[in-house]
Amino acid sequence: VNVSFLQELFATIAEQGRQLLPRSLVRAQAERGDLSELVAALLSVRGEASGIAIARTILDRYRGFRAPERRRFLEYLAETLQPDPEVLARAARSYLDVPGQAALAALQRAVESPRQEFFRRLNSPPGATAEIVAMRRDLLDWVGEDPLLARVDADLMHLLSSWFNRGFLVLQRIDWQTPAAVLEKIIAYEAVHQIQGWNDLRRRLDPRDRRCFAFFHPSLIDEPLIFVEVALTSDIPDNIHSLLEEAPKGYVDGDAPRAAVFYSISNCQEGLRGISFGSFLIKRVVDDLLKEQPSLRTFATLSPLPGFAKWLRRALEGGEDEGPHLEAGERERLAHLGNLDPQPDPEHAAAIKTVVTRLAAHYLVVAKGADGRPVDPVARFHLGNGARLERINWPGDTSPKGMREALGVMVNYRYDVRDIEKNHEAFANTGAVATSRQVRALLKAELSLPETDVRRRLTSARPRRTETSE
Amino acid sequence: VNVSFLQELFATIAEQGRQLLPRSLVRAQAERGDLSELVAALLSVRGEASGIAIARTILDRYRGFRAPERRRFLEYLAETLQPDPEVLARAARSYLDVPGQAALAALQRAVESPRQEFFRRLNSPPGATAEIVAMRRDLLDWVGEDPLLARVDADLMHLLSSWFNRGFLVLQRIDWQTPAAVLEKIIAYEAVHQIQGWNDLRRRLDPRDRRCFAFFHPSLIDEPLIFVEVALTSDIPDNIHSLLEEAPKGYVDGDAPRAAVFYSISNCQEGLRGISFGSFLIKRVVDDLLKEQPSLRTFATLSPLPGFAKWLRRALEGGEDEGPHLEAGERERLAHLGNLDPQPDPEHAAAIKTVVTRLAAHYLVVAKGADGRPVDPVARFHLGNGARLERINWPGDTSPKGMREALGVMVNYRYDVRDIEKNHEAFANTGAVATSRQVRALLKAELSLPETDVRRRLTSARPRRTETSE
Amino acid sequence: VNVSFLQELFATIAEQGRQLLPRSLVRAQAERGDLSELVAALLSVRGEASGIAIARTILDRYRGFRAPERRRFLEYLAETLQPDPEVLARAARSYLDVPGQAALAALQRAVESPRQEFFRRLNSPPGATAEIVAMRRDLLDWVGEDPLLARVDADLMHLLSSWFNRGFLVLQRIDWQTPAAVLEKIIAYEAVHQIQGWNDLRRRLDPRDRRCFAFFHPSLIDEPLIFVEVALTSDIPDNIHSLLEEAPKGYVDGDAPRAAVFYSISNCQEGLRGISFGSFLIKRVVDDLLKEQPSLRTFATLSPLPGFAKWLRRALEGGEDEGPHLEAGERERLAHLGNLDPQPDPEHAAAIKTVVTRLAAHYLVVAKGADGRPVDPVARFHLGNGARLERINWPGDTSPKGMREALGVMVNYRYDVRDIEKNHEAFANTGAVATSRQVRALLKAELSLPETDVRRRLTSARPRRTETSE
Amino acid sequence: VNVSFLQELFATIAEQGRQLLPRSLVRAQAERGDLSELVAALLSVRGEASGIAIARTILDRYRGFRAPERRRFLEYLAETLQPDPEVLARAARSYLDVPGQAALAALQRAVESPRQEFFRRLNSPPGATAEIVAMRRDLLDWVGEDPLLARVDADLMHLLSSWFNRGFLVLQRIDWQTPAAVLEKIIAYEAVHQIQGWNDLRRRLDPRDRRCFAFFHPSLIDEPLIFVEVALTSDIPDNIHSLLEEAPKGYVDGDAPRAAVFYSISNCQEGLRGISFGSFLIKRVVDDLLKEQPSLRTFATLSPLPGFAKWLRRALEGGEDEGPHLEAGERERLAHLGNLDPQPDPEHAAAIKTVVTRLAAHYLVVAKGADGRPVDPVARFHLGNGARLERINWPGDTSPKGMREALGVMVNYRYDVRDIEKNHEAFANTGAVATSRQVRALLKAELSLPETDVRRRLTSARPRRTETSE
Repeated sequence: VNVSFLQELFATIAEQGRQLLPRSLVRAQAERGDLSELVAALLSVRGEASGIAIARTILDRYRGFRAPERRRFLEYLAETLQPDPEVLARAARSYLDVPGQAALAALQRAVESPRQEFFRRLNSPPGATAEIVAMRRDLLDWVGEDPLLARVDADLMHLLSSWFNRGFLVLQRIDWQTPAAVLEKIIAYEAVHQIQGWNDLRRRLDPRDRRCFAFFHPSLIDEPLIFVEVALTSDIPDNIHSLLEEAPKGYVDGDAPRAAVFYSISNCQEGLRGISFGSFLIKRVVDDLLKEQPSLRTFATLSPLPGFAKWLRRALEGGEDEGPHLEAGERERLAHLGNLDPQPDPEHAAAIKTVVTRLAAHYLVVAKGADGRPVDPVARFHLGNGARLERINWPGDTSPKGMREALGVMVNYRYDVRDIEKNHEAFANTGAVATSRQVRALLKAELSLPETDVRRRLTSARPRRTETSE
Repeated sequence: VNVSFLQELFATIAEQGRQLLPRSLVRAQAERGDLSELVAALLSVRGEASGIAIARTILDRYRGFRAPERRRFLEYLAETLQPDPEVLARAARSYLDVPGQAALAALQRAVESPRQEFFRRLNSPPGATAEIVAMRRDLLDWVGEDPLLARVDADLMHLLSSWFNRGFLVLQRIDWQTPAAVLEKIIAYEAVHQIQGWNDLRRRLDPRDRRCFAFFHPSLIDEPLIFVEVALTSDIPDNIHSLLEEAPKGYVDGDAPRAAVFYSISNCQEGLRGISFGSFLIKRVVDDLLKEQPSLRTFATLSPLPGFAKWLRRALEGGEDEGPHLEAGERERLAHLGNLDPQPDPEHAAAIKTVVTRLAAHYLVVAKGADGRPVDPVARFHLGNGARLERINWPGDTSPKGMREALGVMVNYRYDVRDIEKNHEAFANTGAVATSRQVRALLKAELSLPETDVRRRLTSARPRRTETSE
Repeated sequence: VNVSFLQELFATIAEQGRQLLPRSLVRAQAERGDLSELVAALLSVRGEASGIAIARTILDRYRGFRAPERRRFLEYLAETLQPDPEVLARAARSYLDVPGQAALAALQRAVESPRQEFFRRLNSPPGATAEIVAMRRDLLDWVGEDPLLARVDADLMHLLSSWFNRGFLVLQRIDWQTPAAVLEKIIAYEAVHQIQGWNDLRRRLDPRDRRCFAFFHPSLIDEPLIFVEVALTSDIPDNIHSLLEEAPKGYVDGDAPRAAVFYSISNCQEGLRGISFGSFLIKRVVDDLLKEQPSLRTFATLSPLPGFAKWLRRALEGGEDEGPHLEAGERERLAHLGNLDPQPDPEHAAAIKTVVTRLAAHYLVVAKGADGRPVDPVARFHLGNGARLERINWPGDTSPKGMREALGVMVNYRYDVRDIEKNHEAFANTGAVATSRQVRALLKAELSLPETDVRRRLTSARPRRTETSE
Repeated sequence: VNVSFLQELFATIAEQGRQLLPRSLVRAQAERGDLSELVAALLSVRGEASGIAIARTILDRYRGFRAPERRRFLEYLAETLQPDPEVLARAARSYLDVPGQAALAALQRAVESPRQEFFRRLNSPPGATAEIVAMRRDLLDWVGEDPLLARVDADLMHLLSSWFNRGFLVLQRIDWQTPAAVLEKIIAYEAVHQIQGWNDLRRRLDPRDRRCFAFFHPSLIDEPLIFVEVALTSDIPDNIHSLLEEAPKGYVDGDAPRAAVFYSISNCQEGLRGISFGSFLIKRVVDDLLKEQPSLRTFATLSPLPGFAKWLRRALEGGEDEGPHLEAGERERLAHLGNLDPQPDPEHAAAIKTVVTRLAAHYLVVAKGADGRPVDPVARFHLGNGARLERINWPGDTSPKGMREALGVMVNYRYDVRDIEKNHEAFANTGAVATSRQVRALLKAELSLPETDVRRRLTSARPRRTETSE
């Protein structure tokens, strides 16, 4: 595929994105903070040239605002850019009288908030998309405490979902050839296992046994939307420390990597919160890795368990009925976990491991939130994508964060292309969690209890040849 | 500006756009033409992988359809993917009862057609955007005679307007370095003055005195949305033939071009009809040309008058009251125009020129359609953009098409950056047509008539130094 | 591989190559045609800025010259830029006296022509390389009749061989995404089977079953050095007409191409005559094709036989001793070939085929030039590369050129990676021509003659499984 | 200029440069360290395929060698690949007998070392150029103590000068969009003012008031040849510390930068030592900066004085006759400089400044080396390029290195495009150093001495309007 023309073609985006329009065609309003006239002008203008200049001016003013002014502006949009209530009431009544196509179309027109047209026009100058995404990031800070702003958020979500439609995303490999301007974003945005500067980053991009991929949008220059870090290994790793520290492996033909391990997935754009790119990313990356490395047999994650400690604390407080069954002495052992010796004596460690992994299995498979889905957000994400709960590792992450949030546990979810659809559908329809034999063994005790509903929450993963090597 | 990373980044778009997904995850339906199950599946699916595969399958099936099947499919979408009438009626009633924010939001949700979500999901596989645009092109063939399809068209327009928001367009110079795959589209899409093969095209791209620019969208590979052809000249030309035939001018410092003439603007994507890119394109091109050629003083068009002959025929049939005033003998002279000698004797030519240019001035300035705007679509476009009617040329285009549609007349519209906003606003608010002194002179006779309303339709262009040289 | 930075990096080459230096720092010489002062200045200058400006001026002047002035300038270089004879004689004597390293180094310095330094400095401004190549193209027109110019040619060859070292060449696929500026060069430079305009070119670049690759040099913008056209087929084709005319094949998995046929190789730069790129190109293309199309089993050519008719005419005139053995009646049959019926009756055709292919085999395998190598230049090229003479086809090319030069014969040379080195060495050392069983069968009659030396000119290709299908 | 095709074109270089040939066609020699057979094979081979494979093998073996083996290999090349002494002697004699063109050509052929052809062939595989440059870097370590190796060096220099001809260099801006792989080279290669990690680098690339440009060669991937760091300022700075530390200036129209200061120039490729890129780079960067920033009026350097302290020490030891004239007490003051208080009291500082700057002026203008040129290498470079010695600053660089090498002095050289050629020629022909009035004032005392030859070493810079502001 010859892609050069396209590349040249998009070169101008960058230029657009980094230039401001040379001059404002719009006279300044007396009070800097009051953009009402400009908002009205943008919505009423019919000429292209002035429309772009007005939009540019609004965006510049907004960027110059401090937080209170920004909030006031967003509230102004929430209050004023509402559908005309009389027109809407009339349209609603007409529709109820004669619910035909014409009445429906009129009602559709009447009900759309003028904010949507406002934001569409605001998006016309070069670089505007990034600024609108930033505007929503501001909005999210206040929308919780200010229900008025929910109106603006609804309209922004509607537009951004359309603009950031998955058909427009571009997958890009991140490596040491990537511009520093993007790499420093990767360092900043890594949300799972912090990157300790440029040397750490270089290790994570080492072409010999690491991969990193990100999604970009044509209109957000230098800004990844989401990225995933992958390690090429021989086996599925059971802890993050050795993975991050191990020496680069220059795989050669005879000893090619067999597993691709997704050990960190980070969303980058706070302003796009609620628009999900993750599952799409994983699917694309699996495809790309398979093309590049035909030796790969296993795709799995090494994932945190961010809600485990919190859930367990509540479960233990709540008593036997709600929480997991605890054997004698286990409660005591758990109590010691907080000030766990980094290198506990083997016997102690084995005992802790037994109880912690069993409880983690319960947490992931049996415990459910009010919506009937797993409590853990990472589990919801991967199980919802069709992955199987493969293995529960302890100690997996003994960093302060790992101990605090998950008592040191890490989890492998496994993506087996033959089961993804089946797992996904079972999980979506019945909430059943696909588990490996190994995980089911952890739950054996609970499964033998007659009253448990554990059994129906489990999906028996079809036995496979490849499992024998596990 | 270093744009290389971005270029690399977008390289993958091309790959996406030219690949099909390797395998369908969806079983074929017994009857090829029936996509109803797939449509339902796409709307109900929650997994990314199957969603993309279903969308890909629908698009492939549609492309394999012949016209009647395609139409049947679009009608199916029109019939079935409607808002739920009961939910909508309930929401409408609730809103009328208590017109608060919650009721409004519920109504907004209830009124949106499920087709929009359907098309958003249909857009997820690589290359889908182009296929959805092609789907709308099909739709436009039938929507006139099939009001049901107007529902689908409304939803598609809503989405495509959002996706092809001007903030996402990319301006690209077209020249002899452009890939052949794009150039052959330019040949095919030129709609004003047909391009006679690759040699003619090369002349129109000659860097010495020609420019061509097009807008592209990141998701439509190799497909220009609209393009404009420009000639760099010393004066505003008064006919198309000498412009297309004249030898390339290698401008050097002492003799740099003073005028940029837009002599052809062509929309390329029938499926995006109704989404206007033209005014935005002209503005961007003027900016770019000024940066490249600081010697430029004048930006003007050499434009056709596509509706003139048709209007004149009707006006002459309609009698004195509605049409333009004709002096004695003029009606006869016009009758001869049809079989006009290509090189008429000078005297005859001068007489024809007098009457034809006067009538064209009337057609452009005085005559209005039912909506109070000029009858001519090209005039509406340029005057609406803020251009001034600068000069009426005869003979300007003596090709068969030029004679048939415009009796050989061509028009120069002039873009003067200092007047664009003023002209645009006057035209938008009062319908006033900005004219040069030269054009006003043609209308002097009519202006002297007491009952005419010509005067108020004219805007007196502020006199300028640069006009003295015209 | 992420190549974006490099791409950006080389972008400036293009700019360099298409710009002239803004102003000459050098005063014009009174007589336009006399560049002697500028030549002297370029050789004596020590400053970079003035050196580049002087070089630019010389190049511009040269380009403005007409043929006689150009020739005079080259002769001037031949006459004046000679090694200093006294210095050289002294160095030669010193070396003969004491042939140590110091004397050798001094002699090396003394013997180098100042023209080499002149051309190295001439190469400093942007775009100079292309102009120096063009200078050699001029030179080649006259060097035959003007031995003085051979001095200049020797120095240019020395430099150009170094600059166009194979390590600096870049392989590029040519397709419909390639800029028109390059494609029109492909049309112009095709030297074997003329390209009949852009539609014919598009067929030859059809990605479904055609490939085209060219070598470029970083300093020659838009200028291929050499290119090869390839057809992906199921079998080795035996004539050029069906190959050029057949409908594009969209190969799919089940029916992937098994053969890659090189049917045209054209050198593009007359000014680089004598610097060979062809064998290197074939090797690289074979590598690339194998990566792209793992189904390929056979790499072969469909080649012309440009010297056959001429050789045969002489051989027949020269009598039995020198030429091939002719059976009774064959001489007559050959006489008819000139005015051959395009569709001869089958019996007649079979008879002609028998004699013509046998004679062609003789021509290729037995007949040798004064240097002991095959007479045919195309045969020398492919056999020298290690190809095997695979098949002789008649009728293979019945175009006027094909009949005139080769009596309609075409040849397949086959590149079998396992034999390339062996064939190459045998050919290089003993002149032995690797042949297929099929070709050897044509020579059986000759081989049975006791006095023939045919046998030792043949290499018996190791039998292979894949040959059974031939 | 549309450069996309070129970019695509060169993309393959990167791929070439990072791949090894898949398999060696050459059998290993028993003793790893003995490459003699491979060398002989490379020189005798006629086939392309085997030639490339042999070259690849030699390069791989060499890279695997440790230092002693490498040296032995280079010595082997020095000993064996010599011109044939008999052939050469015969050719020398023939030339002396009849010194015609034929004899000259034969002598030219006979005298060329076979090493040149060896290295040309060694350069054929992808990535070879970088490895040959690395080979010369090795060579330079030993050539001083091993005169035999000088032969190899002479041949390598001859070839590398041709391959790295200035016409093939590509200027590239280095900024935060540059790939990390190149940026880490910039950090490593900075030789004047060490870069303290990625944050320091980012400051030096800040687009608001910094520029960095490098030359690249198409065949050296990711490897700058030389780069220059530039600060955009309002005035010529007089010390490096404030320059490196000052906050970024976002120049806007009203306050555009007036001076471009070259404060660091670093050669990167040790293996290309002796091939000068610096003057060419400065000229190109001045051109580029002027295009980008038309407000620039002054181009100057802030340069170290690396040989000053060493020269002064010797001069003071050598006594009055050779060294500069010292007033009473100055010798004592200088003695204190070594343990200079970082913030000396103003009076003390003023006294030191007087003597140090006067001595530095003497060092730069009056003192000459054995070759009659300035002692200081940086001075030789800039003065040789046509710069003027503009100002001597104390304290300019109080870093340990700056104190040790230059007693804290830094110098501004100024590039005035109107004087560059004049200064360059005067310096080249008579050794005259162009100086500003300010510098001449420092030498006034010496100039008044009757016997001095200072006067003729000075060039009086033509007075200019712009000087009034200095």
